[in-house]
Amino acid sequence: MTSSFYKQASKSQIKRFAKLQLKKFRDKEKLFLAEGLRTVTELLNHLPDEQCLTALFIEPAQLCSIPNKDRFHEKIFLIDHEEGYRLSGTSTAQGVVGIFSQQQSPVTAKASFGRVEQSLAVALDDVQDPGNVGTIVRTAAWFGISDLICGPGTADRYNPKAIRAGAGSIFCMRHYGVDDLREELERMRRGGYEICCSSLQGTDFRDFDAWPEKMVLVIGNEANGIGQEILTIADRHVTIPHGRDELQVESLNAAVSASILMAMLTL
Amino acid sequence: MTSSFYKQASKSQIKRFAKLQLKKFRDKEKLFLAEGLRTVTELLNHLPDEQCLTALFIEPAQLCSIPNKDRFHEKIFLIDHEEGYRLSGTSTAQGVVGIFSQQQSPVTAKASFGRVEQSLAVALDDVQDPGNVGTIVRTAAWFGISDLICGPGTADRYNPKAIRAGAGSIFCMRHYGVDDLREELERMRRGGYEICCSSLQGTDFRDFDAWPEKMVLVIGNEANGIGQEILTIADRHVTIPHGRDELQVESLNAAVSASILMAMLTL
Repeated sequence: MTSSFYKQASKSQIKRFAKLQLKKFRDKEKLFLAEGLRTVTELLNHLPDEQCLTALFIEPAQLCSIPNKDRFHEKIFLIDHEEGYRLSGTSTAQGVVGIFSQQQSPVTAKASFGRVEQSLAVALDDVQDPGNVGTIVRTAAWFGISDLICGPGTADRYNPKAIRAGAGSIFCMRHYGVDDLREELERMRRGGYEICCSSLQGTDFRDFDAWPEKMVLVIGNEANGIGQEILTIADRHVTIPHGRDELQVESLNAAVSASILMAMLTL
Repeated sequence: MTSSFYKQASKSQIKRFAKLQLKKFRDKEKLFLAEGLRTVTELLNHLPDEQCLTALFIEPAQLCSIPNKDRFHEKIFLIDHEEGYRLSGTSTAQGVVGIFSQQQSPVTAKASFGRVEQSLAVALDDVQDPGNVGTIVRTAAWFGISDLICGPGTADRYNPKAIRAGAGSIFCMRHYGVDDLREELERMRRGGYEICCSSLQGTDFRDFDAWPEKMVLVIGNEANGIGQEILTIADRHVTIPHGRDELQVESLNAAVSASILMAMLTL
């Protein structure tokens, strides 16, 4: 179909959806915004159902880049370069901006990994970089992590940078935010979960003979690690050993630590 | 010491060093630029010798944030906010910009990991995101990887975003760029290295009984993986298995894949 088949975006649409750059409006509208052809295509590939797509804004030259778009052609709106910039606030949107629903109900697919009956959840305590949050969502979805819990201070998992880093994975796993992470972890413990904190001062993960059937792995702030009030309630403190070269870096990137531990614990 | 102790930055310094945002000038001057208090502090903590620091530009209010600065006080120059912005091209420099030497000679520290006599090198084929390159440098330094080889298309490891993601690790390991990655890998093979490509179509890394004493792990482009001309000369193709949830993401982030494999191969 040629571009004349599609409607032009209205000024009120641009104005309304550009506000989704801000968490306040994302929370209010229960929507989020994704920028760039690759990110939008990945999200479309993982769409739980077509209701989750609210609108797709696209420059005419990019129309041919979106596969299988007939199924939602009435949600496609044409924009020009200036409108794309106003929607996304960046020059990296490449003429494609998607508006999607935040999932209201968790994915109910069975989320267990390698060893049957085991369940690993991941909790984020003040992980501030949205790129790290998105990367952790992506890795968690890859390894079949059951739940991702975002504690206070943690970057919004619907931030456009988190969505970009997540590569479509935001639709692939259960995740939720909590105002009080300690309370949530204690609630999970009553449900049979062990609390395992990733920390530079922890025990080499190879020194544990066995892992519990249900565990929540806590990842802390990029500079300061996990907060004291969470550390004190942990059942285990785990660390990733480093090489033995004399010249060492102090730490790993938070998303990298989380990913290595997820791999080690699920494979 | 009060700020009146330090010299003001000159216009010609600002003009000269601001050009280090561009690879062309970094290559010509054999220098690189680091932005932000945390990144600069991490680099200062890992400085191989004080000659590697060329200059430190700092807003007076930030002077007290730099520890042990007496040892290089003659390299400190005061800037205002506008000059900080001109130097770094971003608003994230937080009033601190460091100019450092690119290492001319490789770190000669013995770089072997866990099992004596084993050596793992990492090669990057067209890894385009500077944040991924910096994160891989950081993880490689953590695990005591012997060498990092940057093939064509790979983001400059001295790009300010790579330096930021690297968290001071650029001084902690040997790394070099090559124009022809296939030629370099074949040279390494003649020196006893096996070539192991990370690929979505590879063999589950757990299915290999043993790993060679010397191996180079190749990581490919974020969207397209490793180029065909490298894939065809590989001795092994290795993949990270995913969970068994039905809803899967297509792939892991390139720096995450690289990090998980480095952990699995060295621990």
